[in-house]
Amino acid sequence: MMQTEFVVHTQGPGLYEFTSDIRKWVDQGVVDGVLTLFVRHTSCSLLIQENADPEVQTDLQAFFERLVPPSDHPAMSYLRHTYEGPDDMPAHIKAALMPVSLSIPVLQKRMVLGTWQGIYLFEHRTAPHHRRVAAHLV
Amino acid sequence: MMQTEFVVHTQGPGLYEFTSDIRKWVDQGVVDGVLTLFVRHTSCSLLIQENADPEVQTDLQAFFERLVPPSDHPAMSYLRHTYEGPDDMPAHIKAALMPVSLSIPVLQKRMVLGTWQGIYLFEHRTAPHHRRVAAHLV
Amino acid sequence: MMQTEFVVHTQGPGLYEFTSDIRKWVDQGVVDGVLTLFVRHTSCSLLIQENADPEVQTDLQAFFERLVPPSDHPAMSYLRHTYEGPDDMPAHIKAALMPVSLSIPVLQKRMVLGTWQGIYLFEHRTAPHHRRVAAHLV
Repeated sequence: MMQTEFVVHTQGPGLYEFTSDIRKWVDQGVVDGVLTLFVRHTSCSLLIQENADPEVQTDLQAFFERLVPPSDHPAMSYLRHTYEGPDDMPAHIKAALMPVSLSIPVLQKRMVLGTWQGIYLFEHRTAPHHRRVAAHLV
Repeated sequence: MMQTEFVVHTQGPGLYEFTSDIRKWVDQGVVDGVLTLFVRHTSCSLLIQENADPEVQTDLQAFFERLVPPSDHPAMSYLRHTYEGPDDMPAHIKAALMPVSLSIPVLQKRMVLGTWQGIYLFEHRTAPHHRRVAAHLV
Repeated sequence: MMQTEFVVHTQGPGLYEFTSDIRKWVDQGVVDGVLTLFVRHTSCSLLIQENADPEVQTDLQAFFERLVPPSDHPAMSYLRHTYEGPDDMPAHIKAALMPVSLSIPVLQKRMVLGTWQGIYLFEHRTAPHHRRVAAHLV
């Protein structure tokens, strides 16, 4: 059993891949097992997505920006938790719509990711953040 | 290894925190491991969200109420599964949009929750319910 | 500890139940533990939903089709990743909105599913696919 914490430095909204950091760590561990990832924040998400064409990531961000506009947008005038900035409450909403934890089987020291699957921290806030992701391998 | 079941009593739509019940149970268990939570229903969700300002919870509910209005709302006239009440099919949709299971690493007998993270049962139905959440700690 | 891979053959968008396949496999395994399911693709999802009335599944598909229309729909003109067909980028978006992994406690050789809970592969693409779901039971 192994535990660690990954830190992802973000510079505004978007997807930040950290698959290779995780892969290196998993490679030091058990032969067969399950990797648990858990993001210790309520305004960003963990996401497994295609890592071939970067436009997939841009489009994902664009979709969620339209689905959950900033709280100073007229469509969002019903929101009350606005004093932490127009990007704060939408960030919490996006964090409800996408995973906070992921469970990935490990087989012969390798995560069973499909060919095009990458692991991302999806930042929903505008200001730079250090995002902590707890990892547990059993 | 430990197993239990938490029961959350709900009185209409909204977020019901039960972090402290889980924390007490985890404290009796293994030193390091992973906690799995699984909600045994298809019309409510498990959610990790900010537990500082209650308006975050009100806003979350308001967002999902607008994203998935009751099935007697004109925008939802395409829905067919309506005989269990106007809040039933929207509840299933919300249950698809938010987690049914959560995996939380445990370190030195403590869940690795971030400072502001609370664990909630998000009720999507109008009538009171007893919601059962299976818990497994390994 | 057991590992396997389920293959779900899909013929266009919709929910494909494979609860009974999983149940048979779990029945051969450990008495108490946790089942991890992980879908090795970025354009379909794993979903736990009501398996009583098939209209629930039709309605779920209809909701997500409206929430994320094909990329040749005027409302989606901002999407850039379109060269793999109008159903491709919307499939990635739906894959972000619904689970890629599920964790289900197992008690006395049975998954702790609620009475109405079935496990589905939710296909988001139009063309037929063979979808691989990694399973790990510990």
